[in-house]
Amino acid sequence: MTTEIPDIVIGRLPIYLRELRQLAREEKQLTTSSHELGRRLGISSAQIRKDLSHFGEFGKQGTGYHIKYLIEQLQQILHLTQEWPVALIGAGYLGHAIAHYNGFQHRGFRIAWVFDNDPAKIGVEMNGLTVQSIDELEETIQQNHTKIAIIVVPANVAQKITDRLVTAGVESILSYAPINLKVPNHVHVSYSDPVVQMQQMTYYLQPPNSR
Amino acid sequence: MTTEIPDIVIGRLPIYLRELRQLAREEKQLTTSSHELGRRLGISSAQIRKDLSHFGEFGKQGTGYHIKYLIEQLQQILHLTQEWPVALIGAGYLGHAIAHYNGFQHRGFRIAWVFDNDPAKIGVEMNGLTVQSIDELEETIQQNHTKIAIIVVPANVAQKITDRLVTAGVESILSYAPINLKVPNHVHVSYSDPVVQMQQMTYYLQPPNSR
Repeated sequence: MTTEIPDIVIGRLPIYLRELRQLAREEKQLTTSSHELGRRLGISSAQIRKDLSHFGEFGKQGTGYHIKYLIEQLQQILHLTQEWPVALIGAGYLGHAIAHYNGFQHRGFRIAWVFDNDPAKIGVEMNGLTVQSIDELEETIQQNHTKIAIIVVPANVAQKITDRLVTAGVESILSYAPINLKVPNHVHVSYSDPVVQMQQMTYYLQPPNSR
Repeated sequence: MTTEIPDIVIGRLPIYLRELRQLAREEKQLTTSSHELGRRLGISSAQIRKDLSHFGEFGKQGTGYHIKYLIEQLQQILHLTQEWPVALIGAGYLGHAIAHYNGFQHRGFRIAWVFDNDPAKIGVEMNGLTVQSIDELEETIQQNHTKIAIIVVPANVAQKITDRLVTAGVESILSYAPINLKVPNHVHVSYSDPVVQMQQMTYYLQPPNSR
């Protein structure tokens, strides 16, 4: 019998992991507490203890959490003990920025392939990778059992690219296209749309014309 | 007496707005229903009706929602009837991509200023904007009453830049720096970290070594 862990709990684990690594780097300390983590993250310590308790007993009353151990445990829970190769679809400005982003290494990911349909971009080198034709998408993904893709394509082709990725075996998609994608149940999609994020904040601002 | 509307409800409004505009563009139809919207978004129709009911009566039993009217109402609720000028901090690869992103227009935002501290980048033209020195940050923001900023700077300077923005009057920050930022209560921060988003999905994947 397994207990289903809520998605929202899983969603907070990478935040804990990032903060623990930050803490280890900044403070050179060996242990932390749910109170310290909570204060740094703006999350209640009770929430952190409850989230972690789904996976085992990681801390001790009085001494708290051993940072290095908790980092390792979170990496295991999130399947980050090995590096995941990632297919990047789209070699425009944002694709270029993602290919050059140095925040993936040591955090579980490596951009391994870049695809585009623009003849002017195919063959171009991008941070050590050569942009491949989108025609090679399925073969490359199937041969390498690639499970993760980042989509940085225009909205009007995003669904078609998603369908091709899913058919080829991809199960996790990070999409920067500003549309909602349809995928089967076994596939997870995470969206990044700066406009949606900013629109969620303007609600709380006084509109410019009322000043 | 005002009723506080949950942040999570506000968070879904931009998604509804984006889908309504997509629907209007694609289907050339004048009306929609909570069922159609829900089906397209993977959200229950009851949830959509409940979210919208916080703000008034937008639809009619039988005829549903008039798309254009609901778009206008959502734009008003989210304070998007005028364009917000946005300060972009950081003119690296990602800053470059954001400065060139054409998804802001008609959705309520316009990148109005770009700042960097790198003498090699200051003065460079970026999609019609000239990169300004970070020394001009406070003056520019105060003079223009800028309320929104996008941070695309390394993690180790992100907090310092945030403090400067908040002191100058910024109240909404979209941060691409992979750290948790400390801000006063009246300031909203939204984070975009591709690694966190991908780590939230690898939990559901079989680790590569178990294949």
